[in-house]
Amino acid sequence: MTEPKALKVGILGATGAVGEQMMIVLAERNFPVAELRLFGSARSAGTKLAFKGKEYVVEEASLERMKGLDLLLGAADNDVAKKFLPDAAKLGVTVVDNSSAFRLDPEVPLVIPEVNPEDVKWSKGLIANPNCATIIGLTAIAPLHRKAKVKRLIASTYQAVSGAGKGGIDELEAEVKAPAGTPAPCKVFPYPIAYNLIPQIGGFNDEGYTSEEMKMQNEGRKMLHDDNLLVSCTCVRVPIIRSHSEALTIEFENEISPEEARELLKDAPGVRLWDEPEEKHYPMPLLTSDQDLVYVGRIRRDLSAPKDVYNRSLVLFCCADQVRKGAATNAVQIAELVFGLS
Amino acid sequence: MTEPKALKVGILGATGAVGEQMMIVLAERNFPVAELRLFGSARSAGTKLAFKGKEYVVEEASLERMKGLDLLLGAADNDVAKKFLPDAAKLGVTVVDNSSAFRLDPEVPLVIPEVNPEDVKWSKGLIANPNCATIIGLTAIAPLHRKAKVKRLIASTYQAVSGAGKGGIDELEAEVKAPAGTPAPCKVFPYPIAYNLIPQIGGFNDEGYTSEEMKMQNEGRKMLHDDNLLVSCTCVRVPIIRSHSEALTIEFENEISPEEARELLKDAPGVRLWDEPEEKHYPMPLLTSDQDLVYVGRIRRDLSAPKDVYNRSLVLFCCADQVRKGAATNAVQIAELVFGLS
Repeated sequence: MTEPKALKVGILGATGAVGEQMMIVLAERNFPVAELRLFGSARSAGTKLAFKGKEYVVEEASLERMKGLDLLLGAADNDVAKKFLPDAAKLGVTVVDNSSAFRLDPEVPLVIPEVNPEDVKWSKGLIANPNCATIIGLTAIAPLHRKAKVKRLIASTYQAVSGAGKGGIDELEAEVKAPAGTPAPCKVFPYPIAYNLIPQIGGFNDEGYTSEEMKMQNEGRKMLHDDNLLVSCTCVRVPIIRSHSEALTIEFENEISPEEARELLKDAPGVRLWDEPEEKHYPMPLLTSDQDLVYVGRIRRDLSAPKDVYNRSLVLFCCADQVRKGAATNAVQIAELVFGLS
Repeated sequence: MTEPKALKVGILGATGAVGEQMMIVLAERNFPVAELRLFGSARSAGTKLAFKGKEYVVEEASLERMKGLDLLLGAADNDVAKKFLPDAAKLGVTVVDNSSAFRLDPEVPLVIPEVNPEDVKWSKGLIANPNCATIIGLTAIAPLHRKAKVKRLIASTYQAVSGAGKGGIDELEAEVKAPAGTPAPCKVFPYPIAYNLIPQIGGFNDEGYTSEEMKMQNEGRKMLHDDNLLVSCTCVRVPIIRSHSEALTIEFENEISPEEARELLKDAPGVRLWDEPEEKHYPMPLLTSDQDLVYVGRIRRDLSAPKDVYNRSLVLFCCADQVRKGAATNAVQIAELVFGLS
């Protein structure tokens, strides 16, 4: 095997939780980095970050400095993404963006390498990384979808504070450590999150769903190439550091049994089947944090399914690190696909 | 109005979280207590507990000492409940039991006063208090059920550690306070629960459901008098002190809209409609702990429902104090019904 060509890589939003994790993942996966440029806001410019034992200084983001890159990973918010990424792509940089700004743009592929790797082929330079809860849920059910086709999905999520970035983690930790009676800061979350949960992530639409809840249907339809996919979601923030969990009830078009599902998931890429409940083996944030696999377990029939649906319905529980597979790792995997590294 | 006759009241399992809460609720509701006898294990005998400013000493449970009581509230585990309660009922004591020992016994009514108060009438002396998650979910949906009849229910729960008794609360608090690196005790829960969640409450049946998950279907069928009710549940323990939350997807037999549901819940007994998402008004453990109402919000259409089901499906989120409405308060309310105090 010939050594892959080393690439000039940039990260936009390098000082955030996802940006930092992207650097860790690039190093872990031995991504061939010839040069690394870290971009941030004017405020974070000058911050020093380590990559493979070398120190890099964060620069204020500028299109000029993005010129000549082979790959730019986006880990900034929507406004910053919109300001820089389409222009960077026009300059010939392959851009993989973690914001939600371009996910539903028909000109931009939205990709989970384990789900729809073929979609990188029609990219015009910019590829979107899906929502974290969507990546985790779809990675878990994709092997089942290929066999039996998902028709309807009901999801309840248990989402970690890391989904709100470093500030979310800091806020939970500060609340837990604060002496009793101290008012919670509530800067990142609308209410205290320690010992609490908040059934709101994002703003509400007219139908009463949050933006986060709509992502699984909208992004799921795009990645499964099925505009008829029906998804209803309840997204809940819970006092957990960095792994999201999901209780999924799935109706398929064709029959599928729990045994078949386990057989399909056993060897599925990106997935760890962890489903021996009698041995207390089931997905939990404790197990999945700081690793890349989506754990899937608690696979069983849907007892609520009417007779004609029973043999083509399943319930399962899945869990994965939101900062890794839900964001940074998936983005780096997309880049590996584009550059033929995987 | 004549003053109700004061009653001789006993509590079996008085030193547990539910037993202590029963004493608080009896006092708060001005339940007419003429005499109070507290029963516990040999180990807890001698413990002193206060009721309305007077001190009571816990006695070791004995049928002899239960004789002559008007009311005995059961807050002990199944084995202790089986040992004493049927015999106490035979002695003429009205028994309201919070254990799961008698809930599915066809000779024993299972009652939520807001749902099926009529069932106290056929009691032979022993009445069972339902499972906490079942009480909370059914209290929330009963007003909708009366209008449109629930056919199918999919529930994902977010259950507080208090569901495992005082030991559960102590374990979470000890884990949170422990210095980093300290191994978790894992005496009450199979894994650490701080910053984690555990998708197992109770043992597993052959179909892969836990005993806790089966309760909503089994107890729901009994209380709604409908053996065809279909329920599938995923029960998850979360690091929250004492309020359970539930994401419910409900299919009804007849049409019902979110607006109608809100109208029905607005004045429903035992319920607080808290559903102005734009104002960030939705149920949360923070709001509901240490009070008796079941908060209901996030009411919306089920976007995953196929066309023929869409107009008769709803999704909602509810939350209530598990130790109060999920256990102690409901038991005292049953007693009030029996003695004509409500």
